[in-house]
Amino acid sequence: MDLHALTRQLCVANDSKIVMFVADGLGGLPQTPGGKTELETAHTPHLDQLARQGVCGSSIPVAPGIAPGSGPGHLALFGYDPIRYLIGRGALEATGIGLELQEGDVAVRANFCTIDAEGRITDRRAGRIASDASAPLAIRLREVRIPGVEVLVEPVKEHRFVVVFRGEGLGGNVADTDPQATGVPPLDPVAGDAASQRTADVCRQFVAQARLLLREHPAANCCTLRGVAGKPDLPSYQEVYGLRAAAIAVYPMYKGLARLVGMDVIGSAKTLDEQIATLREAWDRYDFFFIHFKYTDSTGEDGDFAAKTARTEEFDAAVPAIMELRPDVFIATGDHSTPSVLASHSWHPVPTLLWSKTCRTDPCQSFGESECLRGGLGLFEAKHLMTLALAHAGRLGKYGA
Amino acid sequence: MDLHALTRQLCVANDSKIVMFVADGLGGLPQTPGGKTELETAHTPHLDQLARQGVCGSSIPVAPGIAPGSGPGHLALFGYDPIRYLIGRGALEATGIGLELQEGDVAVRANFCTIDAEGRITDRRAGRIASDASAPLAIRLREVRIPGVEVLVEPVKEHRFVVVFRGEGLGGNVADTDPQATGVPPLDPVAGDAASQRTADVCRQFVAQARLLLREHPAANCCTLRGVAGKPDLPSYQEVYGLRAAAIAVYPMYKGLARLVGMDVIGSAKTLDEQIATLREAWDRYDFFFIHFKYTDSTGEDGDFAAKTARTEEFDAAVPAIMELRPDVFIATGDHSTPSVLASHSWHPVPTLLWSKTCRTDPCQSFGESECLRGGLGLFEAKHLMTLALAHAGRLGKYGA
Repeated sequence: MDLHALTRQLCVANDSKIVMFVADGLGGLPQTPGGKTELETAHTPHLDQLARQGVCGSSIPVAPGIAPGSGPGHLALFGYDPIRYLIGRGALEATGIGLELQEGDVAVRANFCTIDAEGRITDRRAGRIASDASAPLAIRLREVRIPGVEVLVEPVKEHRFVVVFRGEGLGGNVADTDPQATGVPPLDPVAGDAASQRTADVCRQFVAQARLLLREHPAANCCTLRGVAGKPDLPSYQEVYGLRAAAIAVYPMYKGLARLVGMDVIGSAKTLDEQIATLREAWDRYDFFFIHFKYTDSTGEDGDFAAKTARTEEFDAAVPAIMELRPDVFIATGDHSTPSVLASHSWHPVPTLLWSKTCRTDPCQSFGESECLRGGLGLFEAKHLMTLALAHAGRLGKYGA
Repeated sequence: MDLHALTRQLCVANDSKIVMFVADGLGGLPQTPGGKTELETAHTPHLDQLARQGVCGSSIPVAPGIAPGSGPGHLALFGYDPIRYLIGRGALEATGIGLELQEGDVAVRANFCTIDAEGRITDRRAGRIASDASAPLAIRLREVRIPGVEVLVEPVKEHRFVVVFRGEGLGGNVADTDPQATGVPPLDPVAGDAASQRTADVCRQFVAQARLLLREHPAANCCTLRGVAGKPDLPSYQEVYGLRAAAIAVYPMYKGLARLVGMDVIGSAKTLDEQIATLREAWDRYDFFFIHFKYTDSTGEDGDFAAKTARTEEFDAAVPAIMELRPDVFIATGDHSTPSVLASHSWHPVPTLLWSKTCRTDPCQSFGESECLRGGLGLFEAKHLMTLALAHAGRLGKYGA
């Protein structure tokens, strides 16, 4: 089902405000069987109160058993089917370091490597060269000149950097050049379709010039290209929902994801308090606000149950300041689970709370994984959350007569 | 998933009886947060008893957040994917006033309007002319003669009427002629595909002759055509389920919807008691009975919580007479929610009860929205209800070996 065919057709304008407050990696697991999760252990009086008034449920980011990365996790929350809409690895990496992709750009993840005199790879990651040694080399590669193509290069970490090619007629379908083995030369960049022939040629020229620029640097004298990808073709929030949408995030990845669906990235907040201040300041100018809180995920990734619990309390503490602005619809959820006992993203459903004046009573008395199982939203695919938000905001007309 | 590919393949005949008792707009909302809905407020001892014996759940008519009209709401209950099968506006309007569409018919909603001497629209709705003034004009339009095409015209209400063109080679894809503005002439009817060229020409001839017939009537001297639509191509209950199906409804819309899926519309009941009498009389001749009760929706649309509650009790009171006939499967549900606090159709899931001898125990002790959240049917798409009905009636074989 193409949900956006429905929302485009049915959406109506009004002056309602929707806030989607995302605690990255919110869902968790107990430390011992039958125990409480991080969210259930945390003292979250404000979310608990909203759970009693609103409606809760458990969202499945992609499909049962599928642990999503940040890209698909957020696309689903934003209402984009995460199976249908893929953000290529190069595009996600570029987005994640804050490069703003333009229509027609092609983004590539690149690795420094070392080659011998015969051009055979001796180390695929250039000995995991330190970031402060690799960054100047990446910046040196900005000297590459390709006729008719603008070349942007940004260091990432250790042996990794990102390249963006900007020009006409560049398709995003070129195979990786990393042979996944040593003792053989890097692969030739091969186009996967006619529209990407020029891109393959541009990649070839880039690597050839890079070898010349890097020949004095035995620690990283070549590079491989991977995850070649065009800017994903995502219809915007304005197009599919008729919403003026703003994103208030601290980290580049989430700003980038929001920008890909046409949200304005606003403010320069570094803390949750500053994010809320940005929200307050921008309140009258937008219909929809995505507020991203990173630390429930990073503490989960660190495997630190206590720290994730504390960060969850920090998330809860920001709720009253949001509710003071009187949103018509308030949503608290996560893009996926990051149980600290697993120290990684997981496939477990994500506790989700929707508050508005048009919620039907459900029995949930607090906000937590077990309680959400009793909720009126049930176990649902995350991609439906935006449609529910629009409905509760009075922004969807009737389907069919 | 094409559900009918499954049911066609698996359905087997037996002498079971299935009753689907539909309270239109059944689902509701509490008047205050945490309160009871209309159904939960109503005294419904018979449905409560069946809820204890059977299995309950909450059905989603189209998709989470989508409020359906009567067309998609009923198609879903009848087991037809309401996204895939669309009933065009003209066809639904014709159906709603009791015009029985035949294969190849094209139905059109028409509005009387007024035009000035230069043919420019001065009022798009002819001043919302009173029904008793517009009906004779609509009947006058039955004098339109188009070679090879039968023209049926029926008055609706105020400025509205319905036209059906019956003939060979009439596609259903013609753009509206209402320019949605005054001071400009009606639009020319433009075909959206080759198969609708003749329909566009027929529409043009209809409007030209209508102008001649109406020229003496300054209050409504022209008309516009909208929602041109062919008879929807719905496989019948006999084809997809192997069921001889009967509909017992009071209002033309629901009779028409049932007829579109091949149900026989039986009886001429005006009250629920008369509907039950019709059911009793026809019991031996059919396998499946759809009984439609309108007033839970109309009182919800009126925003009258107490009246909807009373009508729900009336619905419940009819249950024993149905159960006396010993159906093998009894279903009570709605086509959508119509909470009286919203005074409109809504997207909220619909409480649904299925009773048969093969129900697994679930904890539901009464029939209501909150209780249904605990039910064994869970939160499910309404289009799956018919398959469940067939299964509980022993009418579906095993899928695969």
